[in-house]
Amino acid sequence: MSEEISQHIDQMIRHDEDESPDSLPDSFDELEPEQIALLLESLPLDARRHAWSRVPAELYADVLVAMRTEARESLLRQFDSQTLDQLTSDLDAETLIELADSLPDEVVDIALARMDDRQRTHYEQSASYAEDLLGRYVDHELLVLPHNSRVRDAERLMRRKVPEYSEHLWLVDRTGRYTGAVAINRLFGAASHQPLAELYDEELEALSAELTLKDACEQFEMAEVAALPVITSEGRLLGRMSQRLAFELVHEQYESQLMASAGLDEDEDLFAPVMRSSQRRATWLGINLLTAFLASWAIGLFEATLQQVVALAVLMPVVASMGGIAGSQTLTLIIRGLALGQITTANIMPLLKKELSVGGLNGVLWALVIGVVASLWFDSVAIGLVIGMAIVINIAAAALSGVLIPVLLERLKIDPALSGSVILTTVTDVVGFVAFLGLGTLLLV
Amino acid sequence: MSEEISQHIDQMIRHDEDESPDSLPDSFDELEPEQIALLLESLPLDARRHAWSRVPAELYADVLVAMRTEARESLLRQFDSQTLDQLTSDLDAETLIELADSLPDEVVDIALARMDDRQRTHYEQSASYAEDLLGRYVDHELLVLPHNSRVRDAERLMRRKVPEYSEHLWLVDRTGRYTGAVAINRLFGAASHQPLAELYDEELEALSAELTLKDACEQFEMAEVAALPVITSEGRLLGRMSQRLAFELVHEQYESQLMASAGLDEDEDLFAPVMRSSQRRATWLGINLLTAFLASWAIGLFEATLQQVVALAVLMPVVASMGGIAGSQTLTLIIRGLALGQITTANIMPLLKKELSVGGLNGVLWALVIGVVASLWFDSVAIGLVIGMAIVINIAAAALSGVLIPVLLERLKIDPALSGSVILTTVTDVVGFVAFLGLGTLLLV
Repeated sequence: MSEEISQHIDQMIRHDEDESPDSLPDSFDELEPEQIALLLESLPLDARRHAWSRVPAELYADVLVAMRTEARESLLRQFDSQTLDQLTSDLDAETLIELADSLPDEVVDIALARMDDRQRTHYEQSASYAEDLLGRYVDHELLVLPHNSRVRDAERLMRRKVPEYSEHLWLVDRTGRYTGAVAINRLFGAASHQPLAELYDEELEALSAELTLKDACEQFEMAEVAALPVITSEGRLLGRMSQRLAFELVHEQYESQLMASAGLDEDEDLFAPVMRSSQRRATWLGINLLTAFLASWAIGLFEATLQQVVALAVLMPVVASMGGIAGSQTLTLIIRGLALGQITTANIMPLLKKELSVGGLNGVLWALVIGVVASLWFDSVAIGLVIGMAIVINIAAAALSGVLIPVLLERLKIDPALSGSVILTTVTDVVGFVAFLGLGTLLLV
Repeated sequence: MSEEISQHIDQMIRHDEDESPDSLPDSFDELEPEQIALLLESLPLDARRHAWSRVPAELYADVLVAMRTEARESLLRQFDSQTLDQLTSDLDAETLIELADSLPDEVVDIALARMDDRQRTHYEQSASYAEDLLGRYVDHELLVLPHNSRVRDAERLMRRKVPEYSEHLWLVDRTGRYTGAVAINRLFGAASHQPLAELYDEELEALSAELTLKDACEQFEMAEVAALPVITSEGRLLGRMSQRLAFELVHEQYESQLMASAGLDEDEDLFAPVMRSSQRRATWLGINLLTAFLASWAIGLFEATLQQVVALAVLMPVVASMGGIAGSQTLTLIIRGLALGQITTANIMPLLKKELSVGGLNGVLWALVIGVVASLWFDSVAIGLVIGMAIVINIAAAALSGVLIPVLLERLKIDPALSGSVILTTVTDVVGFVAFLGLGTLLLV
């Protein structure tokens, strides 16, 4: 895949630079919507707009849904009324749910007006669930039968177009309540007059539409089927969660965790407009600046010492940086543990003990190494002693904060992946500088 | 899920601390192997060993396979010959492939000897593929028929036990070469004497066993089916890649990227023995120490200046830290882009331009803020001027390195998620200190 896409990316950009229209591929006919989406995301804004004009109109909706929000909106903002008209001519409920937040209200209304009644009902049901709930994203293409149907009814249903990921068909009672699932393979060998209710797959559990996306993914993966039924709080069959949705959600969760560590959003566009991108990143830099000034203030307490022993100023980054790295190792392990659900009230103490032991061992080891190097560099055993002690103190503090900061943040419902590392670095910087310069003041001045 | 598991974790740990056997749940009967695996991973080593004794023997293999390597090996090392005997009594090829690296050679030999011929052949085929290739991990539970079979043969096959994730059955010729797939739902309504070859699903493509796991996952998700056939380089049907494998691989890839950012391995055990864990982390701390000394050396060049203007020492962390944060934002965006395949030769220049513009804007903005604060703090406009210029230079350098470092590492086949941030921080530290102290020497001394 990547080979093919990267050629397309290169061609589109060169074309945009040279303005030589003949160097272009004919169209994106041979690409999947997901591939076209990736291609568009990889292009600067002008080239992206040109590339859009080569997307076949029937793929508009699929390509936009496959794009990350911000890149998608960069295109939508530029759409003329004809393109919007083509886009809204035949949307299903799931697609409109995905795109609605990126579209002007009047365009959503037009799309809704053009939907058939069934899709409009689906849309309204989905839209009644919040953004982080499973109910919002269910897929409405279902193999459903009344619960008193027989095997021959199921066989008739199977002759029609069967949606992908169909291992089961779902049964509902007269009021639409879900009564159970029948594995399609059970139909083979069953007598045609046999009631389907005798073939229920007892192991298959329905998912509640009120589940958060994270919990829904966990239950889905545990169930080991290609799709699960999703029911409302009253037990009505709302739709299904298929493998495709599960993959999308898993990718989004991880991407947002990865991007959060740098204060970014998972929807950040590679080629976001400079002003927008600067604004967003400015906030993160501003938060960091406050913590950096805190570290400076800590150093400022020891101005007199620094004036007398300039070696301390030279070695400061070593103390801060060793603490920061040791802390971020613990922090990363704990953040993963929290995400997996490995960390509970009862195992925090043993974890703390283990991390403090690891920190203690490494603290002593590197304190010796750094102490010797510093002693030789500045020809002073006292300097070596001071930095060695500061390193031990700071790596121990790093282990402690690496465990406690993410656990506390989680309790306070703040994402530890987002703010954990900023807070940790503040602690290791301040502790490191105060320990190092404080010991320096006591022993060297 | 997490609620239930975390109660179990708490109970096991409290039990281990109080040694009151009556406080324990009866057994883990109601838990899935994946849940037991998570529970075991969440326990300190002693409690983990006690908890293992409550795992039903028939789940041994499944639980061990579901565990991360290091935690699994912490248990395997303690197994007595009876447990090993139970474990190896009925392993299939896929399970043994997963466990083989964690087992002593003689135990693998025993397990192989106890396998039936079919499983042993599967094992040998899988073991002939390297660790990062799809062929090693294929699932051998397949619905297969000779390519000249008819619909009635397929119907007969379907009456037997059908493996999960079965939307298709696969056809092979006399030599075992894969000839195509038939969607199971196509069997409904087809005449029983119709040749299956007339019902081939033309859209379904087989995966090559030689694919890397990453490429295999991409192709699998694009195909949107619950399982795909996997073929050898000669076209023989080796097995299938199912959704379960795809999920496992996706989780592993992300986890390893997340852990790599702190120099950790995705198999790192939450409760790894202190010595082992310390050793591993020591390497990463050592690498970081070298870069920290590089920064110190850069500062050391300006000792005379620092002695005269101690305010420079106080403000140093602000310059380094703003560069580090700005750089890590760019770096994170680029690392994601590389992982997704969004970044090619042609779009590096426009990306660099965009990131430099964002960096330039934020550089100027924060240079003004920091400049004013520093001027007021130290009552010197010159100090404000020096730090302002240093901030602009360092944030620009950060943008440049945030793009170029990961791209270069990728070219050199070094994982940018692992070493990108260490190298970046070194650059922003050194550039920041040299710019700040250099300008200070020119303008303040």
